[in-house]
Amino acid sequence: MPTKKIVFLIQCEDRRGILSATTTWFYHQGFNILHCQQHTDSIDGRFFMRVELDVADLVTTRGALEQEFGRFAAEQQLQWECHWGDYANRVAIMVSKTSHCLYDLVSRQKEGDLDCEIPLIISNHPDLEHIANQFRIPFYHLPITAQTKGQQEAKVQSLLKRFDIDLVVMARYMQILSPAFTEAWAGRIINIHHGFLPAFQGANPYAQAYQRGVKMIGATAHYASDELDQGPIIEQDVVRVNHELDPKGLRDVGKDVERRVLNRAVQAHLESRVIIYKNRTIVFSSGQ
Amino acid sequence: MPTKKIVFLIQCEDRRGILSATTTWFYHQGFNILHCQQHTDSIDGRFFMRVELDVADLVTTRGALEQEFGRFAAEQQLQWECHWGDYANRVAIMVSKTSHCLYDLVSRQKEGDLDCEIPLIISNHPDLEHIANQFRIPFYHLPITAQTKGQQEAKVQSLLKRFDIDLVVMARYMQILSPAFTEAWAGRIINIHHGFLPAFQGANPYAQAYQRGVKMIGATAHYASDELDQGPIIEQDVVRVNHELDPKGLRDVGKDVERRVLNRAVQAHLESRVIIYKNRTIVFSSGQ
Amino acid sequence: MPTKKIVFLIQCEDRRGILSATTTWFYHQGFNILHCQQHTDSIDGRFFMRVELDVADLVTTRGALEQEFGRFAAEQQLQWECHWGDYANRVAIMVSKTSHCLYDLVSRQKEGDLDCEIPLIISNHPDLEHIANQFRIPFYHLPITAQTKGQQEAKVQSLLKRFDIDLVVMARYMQILSPAFTEAWAGRIINIHHGFLPAFQGANPYAQAYQRGVKMIGATAHYASDELDQGPIIEQDVVRVNHELDPKGLRDVGKDVERRVLNRAVQAHLESRVIIYKNRTIVFSSGQ
Amino acid sequence: MPTKKIVFLIQCEDRRGILSATTTWFYHQGFNILHCQQHTDSIDGRFFMRVELDVADLVTTRGALEQEFGRFAAEQQLQWECHWGDYANRVAIMVSKTSHCLYDLVSRQKEGDLDCEIPLIISNHPDLEHIANQFRIPFYHLPITAQTKGQQEAKVQSLLKRFDIDLVVMARYMQILSPAFTEAWAGRIINIHHGFLPAFQGANPYAQAYQRGVKMIGATAHYASDELDQGPIIEQDVVRVNHELDPKGLRDVGKDVERRVLNRAVQAHLESRVIIYKNRTIVFSSGQ
Repeated sequence: MPTKKIVFLIQCEDRRGILSATTTWFYHQGFNILHCQQHTDSIDGRFFMRVELDVADLVTTRGALEQEFGRFAAEQQLQWECHWGDYANRVAIMVSKTSHCLYDLVSRQKEGDLDCEIPLIISNHPDLEHIANQFRIPFYHLPITAQTKGQQEAKVQSLLKRFDIDLVVMARYMQILSPAFTEAWAGRIINIHHGFLPAFQGANPYAQAYQRGVKMIGATAHYASDELDQGPIIEQDVVRVNHELDPKGLRDVGKDVERRVLNRAVQAHLESRVIIYKNRTIVFSSGQ
Repeated sequence: MPTKKIVFLIQCEDRRGILSATTTWFYHQGFNILHCQQHTDSIDGRFFMRVELDVADLVTTRGALEQEFGRFAAEQQLQWECHWGDYANRVAIMVSKTSHCLYDLVSRQKEGDLDCEIPLIISNHPDLEHIANQFRIPFYHLPITAQTKGQQEAKVQSLLKRFDIDLVVMARYMQILSPAFTEAWAGRIINIHHGFLPAFQGANPYAQAYQRGVKMIGATAHYASDELDQGPIIEQDVVRVNHELDPKGLRDVGKDVERRVLNRAVQAHLESRVIIYKNRTIVFSSGQ
Repeated sequence: MPTKKIVFLIQCEDRRGILSATTTWFYHQGFNILHCQQHTDSIDGRFFMRVELDVADLVTTRGALEQEFGRFAAEQQLQWECHWGDYANRVAIMVSKTSHCLYDLVSRQKEGDLDCEIPLIISNHPDLEHIANQFRIPFYHLPITAQTKGQQEAKVQSLLKRFDIDLVVMARYMQILSPAFTEAWAGRIINIHHGFLPAFQGANPYAQAYQRGVKMIGATAHYASDELDQGPIIEQDVVRVNHELDPKGLRDVGKDVERRVLNRAVQAHLESRVIIYKNRTIVFSSGQ
Repeated sequence: MPTKKIVFLIQCEDRRGILSATTTWFYHQGFNILHCQQHTDSIDGRFFMRVELDVADLVTTRGALEQEFGRFAAEQQLQWECHWGDYANRVAIMVSKTSHCLYDLVSRQKEGDLDCEIPLIISNHPDLEHIANQFRIPFYHLPITAQTKGQQEAKVQSLLKRFDIDLVVMARYMQILSPAFTEAWAGRIINIHHGFLPAFQGANPYAQAYQRGVKMIGATAHYASDELDQGPIIEQDVVRVNHELDPKGLRDVGKDVERRVLNRAVQAHLESRVIIYKNRTIVFSSGQ
C-alpha cells in the first residue's frame, strides 16, 4: 500500500442509506475512493465496509481527519478504525522449536511481500535464535513452565509494549495463552492451527488423520481467543494426500499448508482487509 | 434470486463522487440496497458497479423506474442494464454430439440450481435428441455444411427470436459461428473451450497436451466473439493430471472440468454478476 | 474398462519376495500386465496391490483361472478379489428428497462415464420418482418410521438381492442404516456426508459452518459402517467460501462438492481401485 | 531419504515379464523393496519403474552392486540410474535480481525440507549477494552481455564442475542458456517459467494475462532444453485471480505460485521421482 492511502474499516447496524451517507461524506471531504467493498449480513442485520482512499491531496492533518470522521461516525453510530498506508505495522513473532512458518514470514518480509516491520522474535526455547540472527532480528528467549506462566506472560506483554507491537503472530508457538493475555490483545494475535479446524483439535492431529485415513490435510489461521482454537477464522486451506503418507509424511505436507495459510492470514490483516464480528470474520478480497 | 429483487449493472468513466451519487439516488428512491459491489479499473480509469436492491416496496411500475433511472444515468453518463429477479432468463442450448455439458445444464436447471428456462435445444446432429425428450425440451435438428452455413444460421437466429431467447449456451456445439451472428448476439453467447486458453487452441487439445506432458488440464468459458476462442473469459478451472493418463484419459478428465466451468459461467451470467469491458470481464463474487 | 481386462486386488502381510512371487505368477500364466500398483504400509507391515491384466489370450475359463489363482493365493496367504472388465457392476441408488447427487450419478451413467448398471432407485419418500421415470429406472418407494425400520430394511435388502446388486450408493438417503445392514453390506455401501468429516458431524452442518465462519466447505464419501459417519473414507474435497454466503448459500455450494466427491468415490469403487484395510482405504490413482 | 536406501529409476521397451524379472532380481539379491512404482506408456510401448530398496543388510560394496545390476540391465536392455539415500545432491542456484524463489529454496534447505547441499549461488547481477551471505553460501557474480555470453557460460560450467554440482536450479535467472550448455546438462537443469505454459510464452506474461482477463495465473517448472521454455514439464500449478488484480498484482500472485511449483519440482528431482522420456516426464507420486 503506497504512502498516500488510508483504509477505513467500518461496521454498524444495517439500515437504509448507510452506504449513501458514508460515501457522500468521503466525497465531500474531497477524497478519491480507490476501492470500496461492503458486506451486509442479512441474518444479523449488520453492515460492514472497507474503503481505500487516496489522500494525496489531504490538506488537514491526520489527527484532524480522524477527529472529523469520528464526529460523523458518532452521529451514524459506526464502529470504525483507520489505517494509514505509510505506517508499517510492527509485528512480533512468537515461536517454539519449529521453523517453517518463521522462515516463511521473515523472508517474505525481507522481500517486501509482507508490509510490516518485525522488531522482535520471542520464544520459549533457544532453538531458533540462529534464524533470528541470520535475519538480524532481536531474539528473546523466555522459557515457560506451569509455575512461571504468569511471570513469563508478563514479560512477553512488557516486550510487546516496549516494542510498540501492533500484531502478534504465533508461528507455531505451541503454548496456550492465558485468557487475560488473549483478551488484552483481542483481534491482534494470529495463530496457526496444525489441522483443519474444527477437525482434529488438540494434540497429534497427523496421527489422528492417519488413523482416520483422510484424503486431505488442512490448516487454519485464526485470531486467538480465550477458548482454545475457537477464535475467529481468517484463512483455511487444504492439500490432497493419499495412503502413501505416514503420519510424518502428513506432517511434512501439513507444514506447507501451514506456511501458506499463516502467510495469507497475516497478509489480510496487514492489508486491513479483516473485520471481526462475533466469532467470525469478514475478509475482504484482495483479488486472489 | 427471489422475485422482489432487481440488479443494476453499471459502468462509466471513473470520477470522484460517482459512488456517492449512485448510492444516494437509490436511497432517495426508497430502496434498500441488499448487496453492492464495485470495481475501479485504475489503469483504464473505468468504474463498474453491481447493485442488488430490494424492491418489495416499489410503488411505481417497472417501466417508470427504468425510465427514471435512465434519466439519472444519462446525466451521469452511465452505461447500464437492469435485471428483475422475477424474470427467468430464456436460454437456448446448442450442442453437437457430446452430451456431458448438456446433461449437466439441464439437470441443474430442473433441480433449481440454474435460475432460467430452457425452451429449446438446437443441434447440427440428431444424436442428442433423446436427452431433449427425456427432459421434455423441444429439440431442433439443423444440419450444417460449408454450403448451408448461412441458411442454417439464419434458421438458428429465427428460432432464437421466436423463442424470445436471452442467452445462447454453446455446450460443445463445435461449430464456428459467423461474425455476423456473434456480433448480433454480443455478450449473449457463452462458449466452453475444451482446453485452458490461451494454450492448445484449435483441434485435438488433449493430444497436444499429452505430447507436451502437461500436469494440468483446464477449460475456459468465454463469450463468443468474431475472433475464434478470443472472446472475454468468464471462468476457468483446471484439474491436476499425471503421466498415467493417455489422450483419452485426459479428455475424460477434461469433460469434468468443462462441465464445472461452463456451469459456473452460465450461473454468473444468470445471476447478473458479469460486466464486459473491452475484451475482458468483471465477474462479481457470489461468495465462492 | 474394456472387456478383455481383469483386475486383481490383493492384500497380505508384507514380506520379502511377495511382489516378485505375484508378478512372476502372472507372467507364467502368460498374461500381460497393463498396470500394476502397490503400496506397503510400513507401520502395520501390510502389502497392497492392484494388477490390471490383459486377458485377451486367456485359454482357460474364468472359473479355472480364479481357482488356480485361489490356490496360489492360499499358499501365499493373500486376501484377494478379482473383477472382470466386461462385467458391469449393478448399482442401487438410495435417495430421500434431495436430487442433486441422483441427477449427477444417473446422467453420468447414461453418458458412459460411470461403468455400471443402475437397475433400481430406492427411496423412503416419493418425491424423486419423476427423475427415475425420466431415466427409465424402476423406483421403489419404501417409507420408513422408527417402528417400521426393521421391516423396511428387510424389504430393501430383499430388493438388493432380487436385483443382484453389487454396490449401494446412498445419494443423500438421510437415514441411518442398522448395524446388521451395514455389516451385511460391508465395503459395498458408499455414503456421502454433507460436510468435511470429521468436522461438523450430525445435523445442520451448514448452520454450524456459518456460525463458525469457516472459509471452506467440504464433503466426504465413505463406506458405511456401524459407527455413524465413521467408515473408511474414500474421497474428500473442499471449495473456498467467504463471508458473503449465508447457511443456504453454503448448502448450495456444498451440493456441488457433494456431487463431485460422491461421483469420484463411486468411480474409484467401480474401477476396482479401492482396498479397505482397518478403518481406512488405499485408493490407487487413476491418473488424476 | 534415510541413509540405508537406494532408488533405481529404470526405463525400457515394454514387454511381458519385465516386472517379474526385475522384482525377482532384487529379491534374489536379498533386498527388501520398500516402495515400487511402475508406469507403462501403452501408446509408445515403454515401461518405467522406480524401486526404493532397503540396503541396510548390503554385504557387497556399492560399486559391486552397481556393476552387478549393470550386467542384469544390459541383458534386459534397461536404461537405468541409481541414487543412494545417503548422498545429498549438490545443487547450484542461478538467480538474477528477483529473490522470492531463492529465499524459498535456501530456507527450505536449511530447514531440512529439501534434501540437498547448496554449495554456491551464481548470478549475472550482484543484487542478491546479501541473501547468499545471510545463509553463508558462496556467491559468484558473473555478469553477462551479448558479447561475453560464451565466456560467461564457460565460467559457469567450470564452477559447476569445480563444485561437483549435480543439479542446477534456475530460480528466475532470466537468461537463455546456449544449446551447448543445456545439452551438456540435459535433465539436470530445472527452470521455472513465470506463466502457465504453453500460454503466454515470452516477455511480460502478466501484462498479457491482464489484457486477456484470465481467471487463473499459473507457473511451470521444466527441465531446460535447447528450445526455449519447451523442455519436459515437471510440475505446474495455478491460483484463481479476479478482475481486481492489475498486472503488478498478478505478478505478486504469480510469485507465490512460482515458489510453490519450483520447490515441488526440485523436491521431485531430489527424491529421484522423475524419469524423462522424449519431451515429457514420468513423475512418480510422493503421496501428495
